[in-house]
Amino acid sequence: MSMIVNRRDLDFMFYEALDLDNLLKSARYSDYDPESIDAIFDLCQSIAEEEFLPCAGKLDANEPQFVDGAVETIPEVKQAINAFKDAGLATSGYDADIGGMQLPWMVDQALNGMFVCANNPIHIYLFLTQGVANMLNACGSAELKEQYLGPLVAGDWFGTMCLSEPQAGSSLADIRTKAEPMADGSYKLTGTKMWISGGEQDLTDNIIHMVLAKVPGGPAGVRGISLFLVPKVRVNADGSLGERNNIALAGLNHKMGCRGATNTLLNFGEGGDCIGYLVGNENDGLANMFHMMNEARISVGMSAVMTALGGYLYSLDYARNRPQGRPLDNKNPDLPQVMISEHADIKRMLMTQKAFVEGAQMLMYYSSQIIDQQKISQDKRQNQRMSLLLDLLTPICKSWPSEYCLEANKLAIQVLGGYGYTREYPVERLYRDNRLNHIHEGTWGIQGLDILGRKVQMHNGAAVAILREEVQATIDAASAYSQLSGYSEQLTATFDQIEQTIAAVVGCDNKGLALANATIFLDAMGHAVIAWMWLKQAIAACKGLNDGDAGDKDFYAGKLAATQFFFRYEIPKACTNLEVVADLDSTCFDLTAQQFLGQ
Amino acid sequence: MSMIVNRRDLDFMFYEALDLDNLLKSARYSDYDPESIDAIFDLCQSIAEEEFLPCAGKLDANEPQFVDGAVETIPEVKQAINAFKDAGLATSGYDADIGGMQLPWMVDQALNGMFVCANNPIHIYLFLTQGVANMLNACGSAELKEQYLGPLVAGDWFGTMCLSEPQAGSSLADIRTKAEPMADGSYKLTGTKMWISGGEQDLTDNIIHMVLAKVPGGPAGVRGISLFLVPKVRVNADGSLGERNNIALAGLNHKMGCRGATNTLLNFGEGGDCIGYLVGNENDGLANMFHMMNEARISVGMSAVMTALGGYLYSLDYARNRPQGRPLDNKNPDLPQVMISEHADIKRMLMTQKAFVEGAQMLMYYSSQIIDQQKISQDKRQNQRMSLLLDLLTPICKSWPSEYCLEANKLAIQVLGGYGYTREYPVERLYRDNRLNHIHEGTWGIQGLDILGRKVQMHNGAAVAILREEVQATIDAASAYSQLSGYSEQLTATFDQIEQTIAAVVGCDNKGLALANATIFLDAMGHAVIAWMWLKQAIAACKGLNDGDAGDKDFYAGKLAATQFFFRYEIPKACTNLEVVADLDSTCFDLTAQQFLGQ
Repeated sequence: MSMIVNRRDLDFMFYEALDLDNLLKSARYSDYDPESIDAIFDLCQSIAEEEFLPCAGKLDANEPQFVDGAVETIPEVKQAINAFKDAGLATSGYDADIGGMQLPWMVDQALNGMFVCANNPIHIYLFLTQGVANMLNACGSAELKEQYLGPLVAGDWFGTMCLSEPQAGSSLADIRTKAEPMADGSYKLTGTKMWISGGEQDLTDNIIHMVLAKVPGGPAGVRGISLFLVPKVRVNADGSLGERNNIALAGLNHKMGCRGATNTLLNFGEGGDCIGYLVGNENDGLANMFHMMNEARISVGMSAVMTALGGYLYSLDYARNRPQGRPLDNKNPDLPQVMISEHADIKRMLMTQKAFVEGAQMLMYYSSQIIDQQKISQDKRQNQRMSLLLDLLTPICKSWPSEYCLEANKLAIQVLGGYGYTREYPVERLYRDNRLNHIHEGTWGIQGLDILGRKVQMHNGAAVAILREEVQATIDAASAYSQLSGYSEQLTATFDQIEQTIAAVVGCDNKGLALANATIFLDAMGHAVIAWMWLKQAIAACKGLNDGDAGDKDFYAGKLAATQFFFRYEIPKACTNLEVVADLDSTCFDLTAQQFLGQ
Repeated sequence: MSMIVNRRDLDFMFYEALDLDNLLKSARYSDYDPESIDAIFDLCQSIAEEEFLPCAGKLDANEPQFVDGAVETIPEVKQAINAFKDAGLATSGYDADIGGMQLPWMVDQALNGMFVCANNPIHIYLFLTQGVANMLNACGSAELKEQYLGPLVAGDWFGTMCLSEPQAGSSLADIRTKAEPMADGSYKLTGTKMWISGGEQDLTDNIIHMVLAKVPGGPAGVRGISLFLVPKVRVNADGSLGERNNIALAGLNHKMGCRGATNTLLNFGEGGDCIGYLVGNENDGLANMFHMMNEARISVGMSAVMTALGGYLYSLDYARNRPQGRPLDNKNPDLPQVMISEHADIKRMLMTQKAFVEGAQMLMYYSSQIIDQQKISQDKRQNQRMSLLLDLLTPICKSWPSEYCLEANKLAIQVLGGYGYTREYPVERLYRDNRLNHIHEGTWGIQGLDILGRKVQMHNGAAVAILREEVQATIDAASAYSQLSGYSEQLTATFDQIEQTIAAVVGCDNKGLALANATIFLDAMGHAVIAWMWLKQAIAACKGLNDGDAGDKDFYAGKLAATQFFFRYEIPKACTNLEVVADLDSTCFDLTAQQFLGQ
């Protein structure tokens, strides 16, 4: 079995539970059909398994080194990237007009997911570059695009996002990097950026930094932030590389996981000129940067999901091949040992992983499909509805997998026991890698404030109303299968409770108190949405059991069991969490910093 | 503030919430009073802070190396151990008759806890040695004790526990290591042992292995296991070191955390004679090894607690000194940033850590106190009651901190954000270290089967009845404070539900199904017990607010807030978990290994 993808499940989600078939009938995606997409997946799987996966452990144990102001990376990384580029995969995420494959984004997510699962650190470079190119394409001037877009799309240059500074992580209002306008329309940048993934590397000839900075004299806070394109090496008019910009690698951060991708502290313009170019208008920087934020946050969620999928597949395979112990009702030591996958608690840990990973994966594809559908639909009202829904789902896409797919990775270690705790097996590395996802691209707490403080309240709660309509449509579809009726009732009750909770929060005048349990709300709402995703899968499984291939019976039975697991074992937790939020519980909010220790 | 201990809290638990004062009045502990114990804690704190803590990061980054068949460890480790020994602390865990300090075990746990928190890997050697010496003292012959006990107690030699083998981890029935009786009464051992912490090191002149092995011709399974003392270097009659036993270091396991302590694969007698000595009787090996299991498992729980305490203290200190962002109701960027400890979600993460760490720490001291009380009490009936109670609490002591104190470490990382994810800060190391505790000394799943399959059922449920009596005594004491009445009611309801759940399990004839959710039961029962521990602390806090020092007001307020947090945010989760167990939910149990993927 593959350790990076479950192809049967991909087909199930895309064609049985979701609607890729229909997307492929549109003019926009008419180059593709299920067979050609299958062939692309074949190609991706083989490159990911042959070039990305084998060096993942070595890269983790031999992270890039800071040598004489530059970075040294093990050669396997460049080789893997070359294989990826040679197969044309660097262009998977772009439209045809800029040289891309113009794949549905859900397909792009799935194919990139294989590389994430195989070797997430390498993929971090690729993911950032795609974000930078798309941002440039959306917001940049024609000249900037002419000069920079081609090599980014081709994967010849990589990109970075430079937001945080040592004194300003989540609080972008407080960034200090300065961009002074020059006579020729360019800007001179000075400042220090922290946590810059891929900020320096030895993999590409140039690095294109997207930098948030302030133009002197602009408004205070986030309203005075502008976005700049700052190349590591300046680019001549003919596209050739010129002088180096003054960007100094001040240090590498040594992470717990995702060690293979550099994470840097960069000094801009400290010892010479660092020239950048405005992207979009002055003071629109945050909006321009956030232009791609829904996609970026779904990709972070996807990375959490795929990191957990790796642990799930590995631990399942291990459990089915590791003999240890005997059934509780017959422990006769003369009998051979059974595979540990026969033990109930191992099954519970595997099932928990399955329910979390496949539930979250379904949400990622569902959300990606929204983006694809908007691109082919002329129905403006429906597009607006779906935009609002996606805005609401985005913090869940980012955070729920960051929490529960990390939990899945924890369980993968437990299935392997002592072996799982050693670096000789991949599951501990995946666990370390996954711990990152709650932190970058907006922390867990920030996502909580986003959903409860903004998203559920925007346009008088329109997004939540749309979500309920969509959930209701699923419940209506489920009514064809009587064995699903209990889930529908539970889902309705949970969303009723969510609406009551939101009403309690909105009715509270003390904004700090109202949002004090926002993270817990996010967690509970995520559970409700994942339960909805499982109901969608259960409907498709029921259909499959009725009409599908007899050889798929076990597959569908597993889907129904996971649905049952999620509704019985998990959803009740969401309900108890919602009670705390609805009560406007002030236990933590009231506490002073001194009271923790009494000093 | 100290990063390894909260001395005010130690005093609170020992003298206000528990009964150390009373213990110290007994003849057995008459050498000590609160002042002398305070002085011992001062000494321990300074050695732990000066010798153990400063090299913890370096040891993690420079784990012991396997060089030419031997181990090389950074010199700071030996230096720290010398400081520990020079202060006489190696003898803290033993009675005076064998040269020990004869401290109450709860005090021994607390003082060792400081070293665990400062540098757990070094402490692993010390903890194992104490276990081996106590086992030898309890089960060994006079000759063996004469020869081996002294250097172990002095900390001149270290000890190991050799249970697992590559093909037999949790399933000891399947060990294959053989011990053949020799004419002189000794045994010749052959076999391979896996996961042996401290199995080889360069810190002591000798290593005393306690090895489980089978004497040929004995009963199959666990009933044919015997315990042997096997020295790395044989000991001459005069106590001097003789020839080396044939024990080969076949490899070091490279762990995710606790990297500073070696973990080894050992071959016994593969290329020459490996002589061992029977401890206790043939075929009593498991019972002899398990003689110390309650203590060992409490110590594992303690290690989980102290590892989390390190994260809690560090992240609290960070949060109180890191400016970032502004209050939700006034985000004016011209105002200075506030400390992140002012943000509600940071408070939630700190409070969760406090509730988990201090709740679990209280349980460790409470359980340790039971052991101390048994040693000074002549009341046989009460001692039997307390023995049963301790048997019941032991799997909780082992597992609840392994789960929830790891969760606390996860939150400590989140409080620090990106910084927390780097190896430049200690919180990620503590998180990695703590992931071990669910695995060794009996996995999570094993503990679940232990509590639900054995402990709650033994003697017709006598242990649960005793637990309820003790809980009721706490509830009775709480009745003096009206603000605690809600907690008492909640605790009663939770324990009622636990009893109903046990009845449902006991009434099920299918043993496999009955125990299918044992781990979840363990989790829920742990929550109930920790809630009880918080009620105990709340009573002491109410007392303190009424009668105590005015300067302690914040301290007591924090204790009451943590109690409120645990009852409001956590206990409801236990109740939903118990429902799954009581329903005999078969979702996971029914699943076949093929159904996970459909292949």
